[in-house]
Amino acid sequence: MSTFEQFEQHESNIRSYCRSFPVVFNQARGAELISREGKVWIDFLAGAGTLNYGHNHPVLKQALIDYIQNDGITHGLDMYTDAKEKFLETLHRVILKPRGLGEHVAQFCGPTGTNAVEAALKLARKVTGRSNVISFTNGFHGCSLGALAATGNQHHRGAAGVAMAEISRMPYANYYGDNVNTIAMIDKLLSDPSSGVDIPAAVIVEVVQGEGGLNTASAEWMRKLEKLCRKHDMLLIVDDIQAGCGRTGSFFSFEGMGIKPDIITLSKSLSGYGLPFAMVLLRRELDQWEPGEHNGTFRGNNHAFITAAAAIEHFWTSDEFAKSVQAKGKLIKERMQKIVRKHGPDSLFVKGRGMMVGINCPNGELAGAICKEAFANGLVIETSGNHSQVVKCLCPLIISEEQIDKAMTILDAAFAKVMAQDVNSAAS
Amino acid sequence: MSTFEQFEQHESNIRSYCRSFPVVFNQARGAELISREGKVWIDFLAGAGTLNYGHNHPVLKQALIDYIQNDGITHGLDMYTDAKEKFLETLHRVILKPRGLGEHVAQFCGPTGTNAVEAALKLARKVTGRSNVISFTNGFHGCSLGALAATGNQHHRGAAGVAMAEISRMPYANYYGDNVNTIAMIDKLLSDPSSGVDIPAAVIVEVVQGEGGLNTASAEWMRKLEKLCRKHDMLLIVDDIQAGCGRTGSFFSFEGMGIKPDIITLSKSLSGYGLPFAMVLLRRELDQWEPGEHNGTFRGNNHAFITAAAAIEHFWTSDEFAKSVQAKGKLIKERMQKIVRKHGPDSLFVKGRGMMVGINCPNGELAGAICKEAFANGLVIETSGNHSQVVKCLCPLIISEEQIDKAMTILDAAFAKVMAQDVNSAAS
Amino acid sequence: MSTFEQFEQHESNIRSYCRSFPVVFNQARGAELISREGKVWIDFLAGAGTLNYGHNHPVLKQALIDYIQNDGITHGLDMYTDAKEKFLETLHRVILKPRGLGEHVAQFCGPTGTNAVEAALKLARKVTGRSNVISFTNGFHGCSLGALAATGNQHHRGAAGVAMAEISRMPYANYYGDNVNTIAMIDKLLSDPSSGVDIPAAVIVEVVQGEGGLNTASAEWMRKLEKLCRKHDMLLIVDDIQAGCGRTGSFFSFEGMGIKPDIITLSKSLSGYGLPFAMVLLRRELDQWEPGEHNGTFRGNNHAFITAAAAIEHFWTSDEFAKSVQAKGKLIKERMQKIVRKHGPDSLFVKGRGMMVGINCPNGELAGAICKEAFANGLVIETSGNHSQVVKCLCPLIISEEQIDKAMTILDAAFAKVMAQDVNSAAS
Amino acid sequence: MSTFEQFEQHESNIRSYCRSFPVVFNQARGAELISREGKVWIDFLAGAGTLNYGHNHPVLKQALIDYIQNDGITHGLDMYTDAKEKFLETLHRVILKPRGLGEHVAQFCGPTGTNAVEAALKLARKVTGRSNVISFTNGFHGCSLGALAATGNQHHRGAAGVAMAEISRMPYANYYGDNVNTIAMIDKLLSDPSSGVDIPAAVIVEVVQGEGGLNTASAEWMRKLEKLCRKHDMLLIVDDIQAGCGRTGSFFSFEGMGIKPDIITLSKSLSGYGLPFAMVLLRRELDQWEPGEHNGTFRGNNHAFITAAAAIEHFWTSDEFAKSVQAKGKLIKERMQKIVRKHGPDSLFVKGRGMMVGINCPNGELAGAICKEAFANGLVIETSGNHSQVVKCLCPLIISEEQIDKAMTILDAAFAKVMAQDVNSAAS
Repeated sequence: MSTFEQFEQHESNIRSYCRSFPVVFNQARGAELISREGKVWIDFLAGAGTLNYGHNHPVLKQALIDYIQNDGITHGLDMYTDAKEKFLETLHRVILKPRGLGEHVAQFCGPTGTNAVEAALKLARKVTGRSNVISFTNGFHGCSLGALAATGNQHHRGAAGVAMAEISRMPYANYYGDNVNTIAMIDKLLSDPSSGVDIPAAVIVEVVQGEGGLNTASAEWMRKLEKLCRKHDMLLIVDDIQAGCGRTGSFFSFEGMGIKPDIITLSKSLSGYGLPFAMVLLRRELDQWEPGEHNGTFRGNNHAFITAAAAIEHFWTSDEFAKSVQAKGKLIKERMQKIVRKHGPDSLFVKGRGMMVGINCPNGELAGAICKEAFANGLVIETSGNHSQVVKCLCPLIISEEQIDKAMTILDAAFAKVMAQDVNSAAS
Repeated sequence: MSTFEQFEQHESNIRSYCRSFPVVFNQARGAELISREGKVWIDFLAGAGTLNYGHNHPVLKQALIDYIQNDGITHGLDMYTDAKEKFLETLHRVILKPRGLGEHVAQFCGPTGTNAVEAALKLARKVTGRSNVISFTNGFHGCSLGALAATGNQHHRGAAGVAMAEISRMPYANYYGDNVNTIAMIDKLLSDPSSGVDIPAAVIVEVVQGEGGLNTASAEWMRKLEKLCRKHDMLLIVDDIQAGCGRTGSFFSFEGMGIKPDIITLSKSLSGYGLPFAMVLLRRELDQWEPGEHNGTFRGNNHAFITAAAAIEHFWTSDEFAKSVQAKGKLIKERMQKIVRKHGPDSLFVKGRGMMVGINCPNGELAGAICKEAFANGLVIETSGNHSQVVKCLCPLIISEEQIDKAMTILDAAFAKVMAQDVNSAAS
Repeated sequence: MSTFEQFEQHESNIRSYCRSFPVVFNQARGAELISREGKVWIDFLAGAGTLNYGHNHPVLKQALIDYIQNDGITHGLDMYTDAKEKFLETLHRVILKPRGLGEHVAQFCGPTGTNAVEAALKLARKVTGRSNVISFTNGFHGCSLGALAATGNQHHRGAAGVAMAEISRMPYANYYGDNVNTIAMIDKLLSDPSSGVDIPAAVIVEVVQGEGGLNTASAEWMRKLEKLCRKHDMLLIVDDIQAGCGRTGSFFSFEGMGIKPDIITLSKSLSGYGLPFAMVLLRRELDQWEPGEHNGTFRGNNHAFITAAAAIEHFWTSDEFAKSVQAKGKLIKERMQKIVRKHGPDSLFVKGRGMMVGINCPNGELAGAICKEAFANGLVIETSGNHSQVVKCLCPLIISEEQIDKAMTILDAAFAKVMAQDVNSAAS
Repeated sequence: MSTFEQFEQHESNIRSYCRSFPVVFNQARGAELISREGKVWIDFLAGAGTLNYGHNHPVLKQALIDYIQNDGITHGLDMYTDAKEKFLETLHRVILKPRGLGEHVAQFCGPTGTNAVEAALKLARKVTGRSNVISFTNGFHGCSLGALAATGNQHHRGAAGVAMAEISRMPYANYYGDNVNTIAMIDKLLSDPSSGVDIPAAVIVEVVQGEGGLNTASAEWMRKLEKLCRKHDMLLIVDDIQAGCGRTGSFFSFEGMGIKPDIITLSKSLSGYGLPFAMVLLRRELDQWEPGEHNGTFRGNNHAFITAAAAIEHFWTSDEFAKSVQAKGKLIKERMQKIVRKHGPDSLFVKGRGMMVGINCPNGELAGAICKEAFANGLVIETSGNHSQVVKCLCPLIISEEQIDKAMTILDAAFAKVMAQDVNSAAS
């Protein structure tokens, strides 16, 4: 009898991560995942960016247990609850107001990133009366049909089974190289009444493309994009689902860039505890929703309100946490650059921002082999990118320097082993 | 300062249920919701069918707290976990196998009903190579774009902002009256090569239409529908998101009807505790998914695996619970029929099945006024239906007979008061 | 060398009618087609309804030759020409004004029926601001993508290669039998805010469905449909491309029914001479087109203006022609009923209106065999209908009684021969 | 009473060219248009490229009159006729075979350019099983819905009223300047599995963009495009509706470029006489059409077969005509360059190829004013381009040098007058 019999017999073939990490996990703490047999892995995947504060953070855990213990509302549709009120107040006080977003209101859509994107696109279309939306090469925004239209990945798009209209695909920052101004290209298309690109309701953009391979937009590019939005009267939607909640060294990925998005989508690490939760932040003037127009059973997950409020209170009332993220990001980047210099200065390079960095390999097979080797030695790590060629570090932001050191040592060895094999196999 | 200041200032206008029930709740137990001020309401809404086992059921609560306490995996993407294995095993043993669905496998999609529908439609289109899908008048399947195409409600559809193609809308059972065979109508269209209705990949249907106003399909109609699917080589998708998990007196709403759906969507009460959770059950032969083809961060909510497995174990290993639901459903229906006879034998009538029943009023204003009056007297209850004309009972299945009695007394009084006003206002 | 070598080698496989009538024609007069070898056929196809006034009618022919001889404008885009002015004046004076359509204006779109439908649908969507359009089972409106969406035929639809959205398919008059009120069905759907049928911009309908198999709508049904349009604020588009220009015994197929369509499409016999020509007639208040918004090189075919004006002047200034059509229609119907009584009173029946009538056979194979036999004996005739089961008479309206007699004798013999074979083959 | 009363009262507001040229024409010969009052204009519009052989060319005229006189088939659906056979034979012998296109077969679709594009796109999608199609900025392919999706012009697109999906818009040759390789850009998108651009069935391209403003693709760019099509297994569709039939100095606009399109669309000047006519040429291997799959009443206009065959025979059996077109194109270009040097060397420039050339003005107002002034002095000429900024010469190819001289003198004077006013108004 296989260890994985229940899964293999009763779960659909669509399961995926379990194929890269063939072990049954049963506990997790901070930056560590623990298997049923008690083996420990350092977690450099962190729920694909969902566990910025680590697994089962004790402060959040206590708040959640207390809430459950006390029979707090678990499910209340979108009724008013203590938990929601506390979250709204905390969010506004600690996050939004200090960042100049005090006039943005929160929409609690279904508790997934794709649902937040669906809601954001609907609202943009409603408010502007236009249908077309610009999204970018290598962008990832979700797999439900409205969001999937904006997603670039062919593997996911191919499963749609129907046409996905009203998206104009544009080249992301540096898509055509560092010297090509992709904003100017878009501007030309939008300024040309016979370009064939209908004036969009909105632009949806990730400041760092997580699934797309850690491509980054500069502050300058983002400012130009915002200016373009103003010029053509389009809304600027920042999809901060993976890059937000501290991942890049600030709560939002666009902080310090001098822009103010009209709409922001958040999910993944928003609950702080890995609980399903998502939110759309929108400028008050755009709040033209009618009650219940975009609906769903699980909008407003109260357990998540509790842990999210606790996380914001715990991590974001001072700038200490942000600074530690920046420092650790720097440390990881340095370690990665060392790996690059050592194992492939000509074929490898480091990509990304903050604690959302990775090493670009010549191809996906190599990157996959490296992750496999790392897993065998105690490190859970995955690839991203259009050819799955980027070994991506998404470790919890609360990881210790010791754990980083240990993980980077495993990674170094994995690169050493796999790159050597690759050279040998190329030579043979 | 308003009691609701935080909500009114920082939450989007899209919030809806809180407008019907303007109070801040902070605790809930079984069939009761408790406000911050300690006032208690009987809950006849139950998270729109999400809390079949009541609020914070002690058995589930203990299992969840134990799991959290022990640092069980909260978020693990779709990796193998103890919690998932236990759920899969329990589901198969207690639910699927005894019901002849032992060959169905589970797909853990994003933790919302709409995501389960998106996944089901994608799979049907992939497997059949066709695009069109039949959905029914008054059907509700979710608000993300793929599911929204199948949803009938114009309030939600109007927010799409783009065309939603590849759905053929067909009349539900008895839509044109009890004597019109709507299956024969559909058969005529599908058998006619110039009807303009392209042969569909699938039919998606609710056995009881929850949002649509408690319209029910008979066993005979469902059997005819299944036969129609076989004749035209279409897949039969039963959306059991609201009517499933015991609501109609059996785990699935279609049990005992002599049919075997190709695909079943479940969500709402599946976790048993109000946690976001959804699942697609599909015949093993249809499992042509490639790994990760339909994706999402929160597919496989481990907290939900824990409570769902506990709920299945607790409630479904014997037929006692099902029988009690049937008995309570009968009781509620009788009480409702009494209300009808008393307050409007000509204008009111009872609709629905099991513990998914309601009273149809002449119009939505009246039904809304009745719910408002009931709320003022300690009962949370809502309307449904195409004109919001059905006062709908979706109370927890674990409700006591005393609570039912109390609720029905409140409802009786509300009908008395509002119907009297209505007569007066009509007379004046 | 095959007689058809040039065609078989250099023309696409898509050619179709030539397969039913494998002969090279080179002349035609009135109701007769003449092959290169001088063999004569009576033409009961008449360009699928394009040659209501027969082939090369001498009056029209002379007008056209004079115009060409005199170097009249052949192609002038949509510039003002003498020929267009004369057509507009004649159309208004002889056709529109006397029929209470004096306020309708003419749009000269591309010279094909499908283009007229494209224009009509665009205008309806523009004027109402809505996208959805109702079209009917078995309706045929053309094969360009906008019109094809409204067309029912799967053979044509299957070639689209992309989704065709924003059409709601409804049952035509008597689609579900004589006792089912399909207008009431549509009304129920449109009055139900969660039916899933979005309120349409327009309804597009044929009063007699030519390609669909000579299905007819009664005056009562058309009046109800018009009323439904007014109730739900939809435009009524009558597609009179095949049934118009006298085919049913009056210029428009809806005359005498007490309705006034908002938009009328005409083509086929409009030029009177078989020249490409099409027109959209629209109520002046709906004329919200901006100059050139719907475009095309051949809108306004001046040769067609000349023959169309001559045809209108020649045939429609008195009611003599219309009466002769009615009389001939009656005669053909009687002859057909005789055939039915003789060869298959239980399996055959007569369908249609005016000179747009046919005999419904049990299946398409039989109907095809009858047409083939008739062709072998000097009659060009084709099938129509969802199963190609209707032997359809679309002879020129100017046909003589002698020619009708001759054709019906051929048809009678064809039925005799084929029905006998069919009985034999069924018996063996 | 206005001269234009009949038009103003009875024709839709959509009429457009008549607004630029407010006169009623009634005769035309060669390169001249003659008004009802006998005033003569040189025609530099030529039916927007439909009258390459001039108005009412005597050879074609005689052939047409003879055919009509002799009761040749006018309308025969797609039945075999003498006229069609002759056309097919002539086309193959004189045009296709000598140009290496002897294996291409002809599809006679509806007699308009937009219908040819609809057919071409359907076929490409059918053959490849893919839906997406690449079309280019500033491309114009027609106004029926399938073709309109590929058209860039917002004025036309805005009238669609529904979404037009499955087109990826790409930058045409030199769209981003002479130094930007737009083919490389497209290749990058198609080679990137998460670019979001689904692999297309085909590319549709004009070698010279007529409506788009006389933008030209070089032979090198076209060769790269063909190579790109082969690399990604896409079909190459050349839309030669405006640039074909000799306009650029060879029968097809792509001759001598070293490419062989899979599919070619022709219309406009194909009949040679201004008659509605269109054709799709397709590689025999792609001829996977089923009989009648793409349908239409006027496919195969026999009058047009006659004039088209006569035109091919008359103009294309030697290379004399092509050489004269090249010479005249050179002459016109030189005269235009003289105008540019004289009136605005900094603000004006010449665009285009062969006898499809024009002067680019700083803006559409200026270009419009110049055309208006030219019209007042005896020259019919129009603008094109995304801002209507190009004064475009599309005179008949058979125009005499004297007429060119006369026209260019009028144009010179118009530039002189309008440019002077413009300078004055800018100065004031």
